This record gives sequence, structure tokens and C-alpha cells, in this order.
Amino acid sequence: MKELSKLLGYRKEIKVVDATLRDGGLVNDFFFDDDFVKHLYATNIKAGVDIMEVGYKASKEMFDVQKFGKWKFSNDEDIRKVIGDKNPAIKLAVMADVGRTNYKHDIHDRKNSPLDIIRVATYVNTIPAAIDMIEDAKKKGYEVTCNIMAISNAQEGDMKVALEMLGQSPVDAIYIVDSFGSLYPEQVQRIADLYMEYATKYNKQVGIHAHNNQQLAFANSIEAIGDGVNWVDATYAGMGRGAGNCSMENLLGFLRNPKYNLFPVIQFIEKYMIPLKASGTTWGYDLQYLMTGILNQHPRTAIAFTKENRKDYVEFYKEIVAQD
Amino acid sequence: MKELSKLLGYRKEIKVVDATLRDGGLVNDFFFDDDFVKHLYATNIKAGVDIMEVGYKASKEMFDVQKFGKWKFSNDEDIRKVIGDKNPAIKLAVMADVGRTNYKHDIHDRKNSPLDIIRVATYVNTIPAAIDMIEDAKKKGYEVTCNIMAISNAQEGDMKVALEMLGQSPVDAIYIVDSFGSLYPEQVQRIADLYMEYATKYNKQVGIHAHNNQQLAFANSIEAIGDGVNWVDATYAGMGRGAGNCSMENLLGFLRNPKYNLFPVIQFIEKYMIPLKASGTTWGYDLQYLMTGILNQHPRTAIAFTKENRKDYVEFYKEIVAQD
Repeated sequence: MKELSKLLGYRKEIKVVDATLRDGGLVNDFFFDDDFVKHLYATNIKAGVDIMEVGYKASKEMFDVQKFGKWKFSNDEDIRKVIGDKNPAIKLAVMADVGRTNYKHDIHDRKNSPLDIIRVATYVNTIPAAIDMIEDAKKKGYEVTCNIMAISNAQEGDMKVALEMLGQSPVDAIYIVDSFGSLYPEQVQRIADLYMEYATKYNKQVGIHAHNNQQLAFANSIEAIGDGVNWVDATYAGMGRGAGNCSMENLLGFLRNPKYNLFPVIQFIEKYMIPLKASGTTWGYDLQYLMTGILNQHPRTAIAFTKENRKDYVEFYKEIVAQD
Repeated sequence: MKELSKLLGYRKEIKVVDATLRDGGLVNDFFFDDDFVKHLYATNIKAGVDIMEVGYKASKEMFDVQKFGKWKFSNDEDIRKVIGDKNPAIKLAVMADVGRTNYKHDIHDRKNSPLDIIRVATYVNTIPAAIDMIEDAKKKGYEVTCNIMAISNAQEGDMKVALEMLGQSPVDAIYIVDSFGSLYPEQVQRIADLYMEYATKYNKQVGIHAHNNQQLAFANSIEAIGDGVNWVDATYAGMGRGAGNCSMENLLGFLRNPKYNLFPVIQFIEKYMIPLKASGTTWGYDLQYLMTGILNQHPRTAIAFTKENRKDYVEFYKEIVAQD
């Protein structure tokens, strides 16, 4: 049972990470206008958010810069232009995917960059490549996290090898990522215990990045907090791929540290997120995402169903249960 | 930590209660047409749902029968007319509120009624009146549950007295009711442990009825299941007052007992619930409900905000934090 002190007191080590531009960018191909980003940055500072993820460092050889907004690439100069002078109250992070980032070239030394944190995203079978990226980022002076994606499909034995390798690497925090939104809190607890075992051994932090397919993104995040996880991703109005993420407004309503403020979050949602949704940008819990979540499948079929504006949920269910 | 056997195995004592007509009726003043109810009944049977709550037994002296659909009153003859011959695979239940039911007159002997279960709803300060209703229903041959509402505002000492009194009564199951949708899973666990202590002592069952203000209705329900709670309320597409309830489709996707089937639930949602929503009947998670949930307030202000089609969330937040 979780300690009562964790409910009414707070753990000052907890870090809230705003992933709106990065995971939300997967919804609108990163076409956020500068006014949105400027105000998101200002809101995060007012709300006490610890880290803001501004987007991806995607390879410009693999991805056409004409087809995506600038937060897919997160050039240092673009960040500076929009954010202006950096406020030391909040750190800036960027995500770099194994195999989709030209990291040696595109990630510059921290002292020449507005970025503070590199978040390396990997599958469990590409950990050596992830560690090369972690070491590169560390040498350049960054804090580094490693997000192991799609763990609901990984074997526990493989996870242990991955955690041991990451434990021995210079990474600062290792993330539990429920890519398919298929985990129940009881499973998150088991996974968090496993991560915490290695994190304690190697003096690392553990993070969680949840998806809302089963309406459990917030529940899984606070389950993990109760289990010792300190880095927690959230997005405004839950904006993120498919069913979206843990909502910032849910998370800040839960956390008791007086440094966090809910009011500016509500202001930002009313002024920016509700109009964004009203303009036709679609994300969030819906029946098709529940189905892929229950079946522990990648949400790509559900995302296609949503984009095609289909409403034949029964037919969709038949299609996805027939998949190998 | 929850036992792994509870995740992959199942507990045959679990009973799923469909509360769509009753809690959903609070959204549309119980104006469900007969076709909807007939198909809901057939769907529940196909889905393996154990109990279907058909509505309230509201006093016709207190409530104008012209202003509400028939499921506010749930006359035996109305139930029979719509349901037809009773299928023994599912039990029928009705809710009776302390102080709002003419129970001595309107609840007939079970042998003359299609109903099987009377669900007595009470606040913690009206337990003696609830016990009078429980005893009346028991004498008439019914299974009886007692739903203690708004417990997030009750004192633990009062709860213990209430549970002791109910333990000594002939009630069959005692319900945890998160009326304001303000409880976190960690709190549900504590409350479930308290209920289970008295339930074990007096050989009663424990139930849970959750609301989705903080996107935790499903999470709190499965938390409670893991803690030994056996009666679980759910509604199709989460239809229920304000932010709604635990979704049937979430719950049946989680339960592992092969008697439960998700497919007919998806069929019913596509054919009946999505059109109901599209017709303008409004329920479900939204920012105003999150706010009252976080503040542990009755959702009536948020329901009014919704009905007035207001979008000024910031102004609403200012209003409700200014309340005594």
C-alpha cells in the first residue's frame, strides 16, 4: 500500500516533463506556431513545470524539412528565436530516436545550445545504438534520459539485460514507456519495481511516459509515482499520438508540491488547446484506441481509422482481432 | 502488490453491474426509448453482465411523472412490458434513495416483481433510514445492496459506525461510491481495506461505483477489484451524471473470466451510444469535471456549466475556488 505521506506530503525529487510539443507534434506534424510555443514556454514556467521537451532532433536526410513543422528538427537557432532568453527555472529537452537522428552532426555541445537534456528513444533490441547516443550526448555535456519504447511487448529477460546495460552507461534517467497504452496499474507497479531495482543499484532515476488508450495514462503515472518513479511526462489536454498522454492538468492537480500551479495550465488550455481541438486537430481517448490498447497492439490502425473519420467500430474490431 | 493470479486468472465471485439506465438516466431525465432498453438488455445478456440496473424507484409524490422517462420510477409493469420474459442469466436491480422513495408502497414482493435486487442509496448520516429500507426489501425477498454516497467528504470515524451498523443489518453488499470523482487509487485502496474489514467480519460483499472526473473511474474500479471488491458498476460508453462512470468496454476488456464478451458491447456502443451522443446528450470527462473532482466538490456547478454550453473554463475555476 502506498504511504499516506506520499498522498498528503510530496517528494521534491519529482520532475514534471511537458511533452506537448514532442508527442503532440505527432498529431499535427509539428506545425505549432511561434505564438503557441512562446506561451507554452511561459505557462510551463508559471506552472512550475521542471522540463519542457521542445520536439525531436530528426534526421534531415530521412525527413523532408518541407513536410514537417520546425519542432520535428528542433534546430538550436529555431529554439532560441522562439523562446528568447532562457529562463533558468526550466530545462529544455529534445528527443532523439535511435536510427532516425544524425546525432553526431545535429546535436551540438550543450554550452552552444539552448538544450539541457537529450532524451534517447530506443526499442529494447537497439540498446547498444542507444548507448552510443547516450555517451555522445554525455560527452557534449547534456543530462541524458533513455526511453525504452513498447515494453509491453518485451520479454522480462530482455528487459533485465537492457536495464543492466543502461545501468552501466552514463544515462541519468531510464523511462518506462507504455507505447501501446496497454498496461494496467498492477503491471506498471511490477515494471516500476524492476526498473527501480536497477536504478537503485546504479544510482539512476526512473521516468514514466504513459498513453491513454485505456483511460489509464494518469492512473499509471500516479501508480508509478507511488512506486518511486520521479520523472513524469505529461501534455496539455493530454495532447499526443492517438489516445494521447497523461494530462498536465490531471498531474498538477495531484501533485502536492506547492511549486506547481494549476491555474496557468487552465488558462493555456482555454486559450490554446481548446481552439486547437476545435480547429480539427484530433487526439484523445476513443473506442478504437481502447481496442488496440486491450489487444496490446501498436495504435497505427486506430490512428488510420481516426484520420479516415470512420465510425464503424464493429468492423474495425473485426479487422484488428483478425491480425496475426 | 496485487497478485499476478488476479491479473491473468479471474475471480468468479466478481459481478458486473450495468448502471447505464440509472446513472445514465440522470443525463437525459430517463428518456430512453423502449428499443434502446430492449437491446441493452439483450446486449447485457450476450456480454455476460451479471446485473442490470433499470432505473430508480422514485417517489411519484416528489417527482412529476410527466417530467421524467419511466425509468425514473421503474414500475414493475413497465419493466415487464419492455423486457418481456425474464432471462435467468441476468438479474434486474433498481435504486431507491433514502428520503426520495415511497418504498413501502412502490416496492412490491419479489415474487410479484421482475426485480431481484434493491440498491439503497444513502449518505453516511442517514444510515438508520437506509437500514429501514434494507429490512423492508429483505422481508419482501430481495437481495439488497447499500450505496454510501459522497464518502470522500465523510469522516473515517463516521464511516466505521456506518459500516458496523450495515454489517449488523441484513444487507448483502455495501458499496464504495465516489460521488464526486475525487478519489485517487491510493485512497480507494485504503477505503476498500476498511470496507473489507467489516465485510469479512459480517460476511458481506463490497461494491464500487466510480465517477470519471479525474479520468480515474476505470482505474479506481480495477484498484478496488485488486483489493477484494466483487461488485463493480459500469455503464456503456461511461454514460452517467457529469463526467460519467467506469466504461463497460474498459471493464470487460480487463476482466479475464471467459463468461464476459466485449464484442456485443462494441456493437451496442456503435448502434446506440454513439448516436445518443451525436444527438446532443452530453456526458463524459471534461475540464470542468476535473476541476470539481480535484477540489472534492459536488459536480453540480460543472453540470450547470456544461448545460449552459459555457467554454470559459478559467472563469469557472475562479468561481468554484471562491466557494466556501
